[in-house]
Amino acid sequence: MVRALEWIDATGTLQLIDQTRLPDRELYLAVRSVDDLVTAITSLAVRGAPALGAVGALGVALAIAQGEAEAWSPERLAAEVDRIRQARPTAVNLAWGVNQTWPLAGQGVPAVLARAKQIVAEDEAANRALSRLGADWILRQTGRERVRVITHCNTGALATTAWGTAYGIIHELHDRGALELVYADETRPLLQGARLTSWELVRDGIPHVVQVDGASASTLLRGKADVAIIGADRIAANGDTANKVGSLALALACQRAGVPFVVAAPSTTIDLLTASGDGIEIEERDGGEVLSFGGVRTTPEEAQGYNPAFDVTPCDLISAIVTEYGVVEPQTTPDPGLLARIAG
Amino acid sequence: MVRALEWIDATGTLQLIDQTRLPDRELYLAVRSVDDLVTAITSLAVRGAPALGAVGALGVALAIAQGEAEAWSPERLAAEVDRIRQARPTAVNLAWGVNQTWPLAGQGVPAVLARAKQIVAEDEAANRALSRLGADWILRQTGRERVRVITHCNTGALATTAWGTAYGIIHELHDRGALELVYADETRPLLQGARLTSWELVRDGIPHVVQVDGASASTLLRGKADVAIIGADRIAANGDTANKVGSLALALACQRAGVPFVVAAPSTTIDLLTASGDGIEIEERDGGEVLSFGGVRTTPEEAQGYNPAFDVTPCDLISAIVTEYGVVEPQTTPDPGLLARIAG
Repeated sequence: MVRALEWIDATGTLQLIDQTRLPDRELYLAVRSVDDLVTAITSLAVRGAPALGAVGALGVALAIAQGEAEAWSPERLAAEVDRIRQARPTAVNLAWGVNQTWPLAGQGVPAVLARAKQIVAEDEAANRALSRLGADWILRQTGRERVRVITHCNTGALATTAWGTAYGIIHELHDRGALELVYADETRPLLQGARLTSWELVRDGIPHVVQVDGASASTLLRGKADVAIIGADRIAANGDTANKVGSLALALACQRAGVPFVVAAPSTTIDLLTASGDGIEIEERDGGEVLSFGGVRTTPEEAQGYNPAFDVTPCDLISAIVTEYGVVEPQTTPDPGLLARIAG
Repeated sequence: MVRALEWIDATGTLQLIDQTRLPDRELYLAVRSVDDLVTAITSLAVRGAPALGAVGALGVALAIAQGEAEAWSPERLAAEVDRIRQARPTAVNLAWGVNQTWPLAGQGVPAVLARAKQIVAEDEAANRALSRLGADWILRQTGRERVRVITHCNTGALATTAWGTAYGIIHELHDRGALELVYADETRPLLQGARLTSWELVRDGIPHVVQVDGASASTLLRGKADVAIIGADRIAANGDTANKVGSLALALACQRAGVPFVVAAPSTTIDLLTASGDGIEIEERDGGEVLSFGGVRTTPEEAQGYNPAFDVTPCDLISAIVTEYGVVEPQTTPDPGLLARIAG
């Protein structure tokens, strides 16, 4: 299994696979400074909510080490850590990860690293647990021996510390012999599905086809898929879920088709301080990502792009939120306290 | 206004703008044979349901002229005309256009050409008429002085003989000072929205932004658009509408957002012989269109693509079908006879 991120003790660096270069090239970045890390996060060399949680936690160690080497003031250190925390706004995990290790800064790099490595280990354990729970729920709910799954964006090992969330459920279904086919949405504009999910599915030997995002609704209404599974960047207290743009359209199509729409995320993705989706900030990225492709302009020079990176799926469209502690069913048992107990 | 297609009397050729090269280059193809024409249709150098109707009608003249030059038997001529008729399966207009002129084949090229040119003129007149009716309906329905419109794929002058269908309504609204902004879906995989609609909007000075197809649902649910307008490749007798893949997701989002979803098409797009969307053949194109972009592979070599070119929007999701003879409202006045009277 590929590792999106790894702390290299020998050199005191954070090693990241450069996800902007996949699937063409498997290159690794050695991140040594806050600047390196912020660039890696904003350029999406590392992405995916749980992976961002881990690099947030590890980033504090990087910042402290750099601060010691460069004799930063405490104020400078705090400001640099804040740059990491705010490098991307939508995924709650990034700030969460920073906030897990920053209080240990006074105890030095070893204490911060120990907690960060614990977070990495816990994320993998959570992913494996929620994958088993999700596979159980889906097989029970659909009543099928082998299911056909639609997924959107990338939620595999690349998006997490290991194993994956929505992808982890797909992997678990495959390992149980209960998976027939995956429809991987290509996920415009940055093609995380075509570039990254397809790459992981090939490596894991999981049968799949890649489709354009606009094909999902028709795939569902023509009865070609039994369930849709996505990850999450932030789950509000009421269950409203922010995820990669295009997720909402998939949820609406599932509702029309009568097919379960499943959100898979570790409990760290639940944000109890945000009451509903209305309170989630949606990152708006450079319009150029829409206007050109692989460096080639596809639109007239005069055209402008509108590029929200995420959307919010209202909780009433979500059949199940699968976490490592259990499954919440917002449609059938709306219980605002349940997510709170899981997050707590 | 650009002309997607034009019969050149002096040379007896059909001139087509090569839509696969836009917006980079404005190149024109001189189509002289059935082979040329079938290649132009299947490669999408010419596309759009009403434009296909016109080239179907004109194609019969090309075939007769080529048959005379090459001394084809009547059977050979019929077979060649059939190749044109079946070059693409989903848009009803292509076969309709061929069937309008083929019965005149015995009277020779001039008679066929006269009828084909009449079809071209009628299509433009129909587009201008339906654009006025559509603009009236939208302004009345939304109660707004200036509207924000989402559209999908390309339905402008490039997709028709002139002026456009859904795009024609947008143009009409703009000419009335009643248009605020157009959100043009890029329309994967072949980017007709990014490449062609944006190009026409720039030429016509109409304010717009390009967005990925997956952003439409969020744009609608966040209250950023007042109406969605699309064209049609085939409208079944009950109002179910086949159009470019991604249209169905847009319709579902409009329903959720409480925003009108408008289909604009000349009456020639109504197919009374097809009872409902279940009877519409959906063209499945080469998976390679999904897997690479501009000749650059975006997915792993082992990946396979699933590439339906169209989807079907059920009539209950359609607020209005706008034709040159009037507006049908499938949601509020389901009248199976009305479409029939319009088509008749």
